[in-house]
Amino acid sequence: MSDRLFAAIEERVKWVQDYVLKPEYVNRFQPEDIREAVTCYFESGGKRLRPAVMLFSCGAVGGDEKKAVSAAAAVEIFHTWTLVHDDIIDRDPIRRGNPTVHERFANKPSTKALFKDSAEARHYGISVAVLAGDVQHGWGISLMTELTSKFGLDAEVTLTLINTLDTKILNTLVEGELLDVQYSQVPISELTAKQIETMLWKKTGALYEFAAISGGAIGLNNPNLEDPRVVTLGNFTSACGSAFQLQDDILGIVGNEKMLGKPVGSDIREGKRTLIVHQAYTHANKEERELILETLGNANASTHQVKAVVDLFVKLGGISYTADLARQHVNRALTYLEDVPPSEYRDLLGDWAELMINREF
Amino acid sequence: MSDRLFAAIEERVKWVQDYVLKPEYVNRFQPEDIREAVTCYFESGGKRLRPAVMLFSCGAVGGDEKKAVSAAAAVEIFHTWTLVHDDIIDRDPIRRGNPTVHERFANKPSTKALFKDSAEARHYGISVAVLAGDVQHGWGISLMTELTSKFGLDAEVTLTLINTLDTKILNTLVEGELLDVQYSQVPISELTAKQIETMLWKKTGALYEFAAISGGAIGLNNPNLEDPRVVTLGNFTSACGSAFQLQDDILGIVGNEKMLGKPVGSDIREGKRTLIVHQAYTHANKEERELILETLGNANASTHQVKAVVDLFVKLGGISYTADLARQHVNRALTYLEDVPPSEYRDLLGDWAELMINREF
Repeated sequence: MSDRLFAAIEERVKWVQDYVLKPEYVNRFQPEDIREAVTCYFESGGKRLRPAVMLFSCGAVGGDEKKAVSAAAAVEIFHTWTLVHDDIIDRDPIRRGNPTVHERFANKPSTKALFKDSAEARHYGISVAVLAGDVQHGWGISLMTELTSKFGLDAEVTLTLINTLDTKILNTLVEGELLDVQYSQVPISELTAKQIETMLWKKTGALYEFAAISGGAIGLNNPNLEDPRVVTLGNFTSACGSAFQLQDDILGIVGNEKMLGKPVGSDIREGKRTLIVHQAYTHANKEERELILETLGNANASTHQVKAVVDLFVKLGGISYTADLARQHVNRALTYLEDVPPSEYRDLLGDWAELMINREF
Repeated sequence: MSDRLFAAIEERVKWVQDYVLKPEYVNRFQPEDIREAVTCYFESGGKRLRPAVMLFSCGAVGGDEKKAVSAAAAVEIFHTWTLVHDDIIDRDPIRRGNPTVHERFANKPSTKALFKDSAEARHYGISVAVLAGDVQHGWGISLMTELTSKFGLDAEVTLTLINTLDTKILNTLVEGELLDVQYSQVPISELTAKQIETMLWKKTGALYEFAAISGGAIGLNNPNLEDPRVVTLGNFTSACGSAFQLQDDILGIVGNEKMLGKPVGSDIREGKRTLIVHQAYTHANKEERELILETLGNANASTHQVKAVVDLFVKLGGISYTADLARQHVNRALTYLEDVPPSEYRDLLGDWAELMINREF
């Protein structure tokens, strides 16, 4: 992977981090548990791929990236609150190698001192996570308003972006999340690959697309989101978003636990409907199908059983099929990039597209 | 209570209802369970006191109320999502005489068909309610952007209001809600009346204040929220908000269940720290204190026991003290109103202030 890309992302992560982790923002959040919950994911790292692609997109249309920093922070925080709420819904205990927010606040010593009953403490953890996500949602929108109040972007551009983010993008994300929950209860044989792909895109592609569209609109200082330069960047990241999600699913099955920061196999125990599962199941024989069905969505499946299913997913081509498809999405993204005028930003976007499928984290 | 006020509220409820319950909004929400969850509280009524006071405030500064309709809808929807999330946190099963969102979707036939396990169905109900509240939050912000895109308000005014709502107001609401949860675990003898009053104001007064401030700023088409006319209206509704919450606590103890749309006594079983409890406990003798402590926060308290505590709250002056205080807040509000130029809107605001404590619903 390109050192140039990592250096560029690193630099922008620092801009965003320096911008948001200031007392004037952080001290707004009260009481103490809310402040800690609102900032903990943000302080613990994360890939920051959305802020980077937004800033590169801004640069790619000739804009000044520094004027998009509050929006780059906004898109990362917007992403973060959806994770905080999704982790409640998916009952995930671990994220980025640390306890998720609801888990952290269920087990905090001060929580245990306040609630003697462990079910009450767990409910408190969920309450903190619900409210912290709500606060982050508001913080993200507030950072968008700073495009105008602090960086002089035309107010009409800012309002257009806020409206797009909080209706079209948000509704798509939520739809994807609830479909994911519903699909986990539908027999894998009754779902089509198309349904699964669409659901995955809604969960991931929509916000990726927004990151580039908004970067482009900010760079051009123009509220017309149908401008061909903006549309091209949106198509580019939308395709990258699909590749990203497929790679995520691959890493969830055959990735490195330490690099991922979450337990491999949890997708299997949760019964996630991925293209990997769909492809493997389609090509499985009767006994293999039985093993898959017994294990998928079985929270108590043994490590041995999960390992056997992982091996099946590899053997039956679920992994290679999904990896090929992810590659195709990246190739498609790169053809969109040909319409972007040459610049260092276009080169970074090209590297960024490759990162979608070359990453191991 | 004044017929004039009810007619005026009724008319404005219709404007708001007609504005938001249009297919162009409602069809945005997918899948079906999200659409139903997002719109069900809104369709089932509610007092709509916030939209009314926003529109009256707009009129009181000489503005055209019709240009504030999307903001009036926004403030109601913003209030609604905080209820949806609070109901999860407070585990309330009933709201406005109907099941709360998480309860409704735990028990829907389609949910029971999807999840065999009842704990899974309950978790699904919570998931739908978390996501529906998120969508409503976004919908509210999107409606605020329409102040400019549909009604021509200066974009700077709209951005200022969005920023205020999604930081200052939201953070205050969330702080109040989490303090309420934390206080329910603190012995009543260790809380001061001041702490309880501040928590109550954060939960209710802040959004009331915003309704009037934004109505004033929209009416004046001016982003200066420190304009004395705007500040006066904010102070007026802030005081009314305190009175409203105190009356809410009174009705929760001695109100009429049917008019309230929720079970009387649930505040006692939930262990809510209200001024009523605080005042009664302060004046109780040893045996009375024991009865209060045994019952408060005891989810399994008998109807008989709850009734005995209600009688104690009356006898020990908890109700009358709180009612007096609510009256004082309304009187204070009315003195602010003297600084508003005479008009039919000022008269309506005066009636509206009295409604805070004369209402039985």
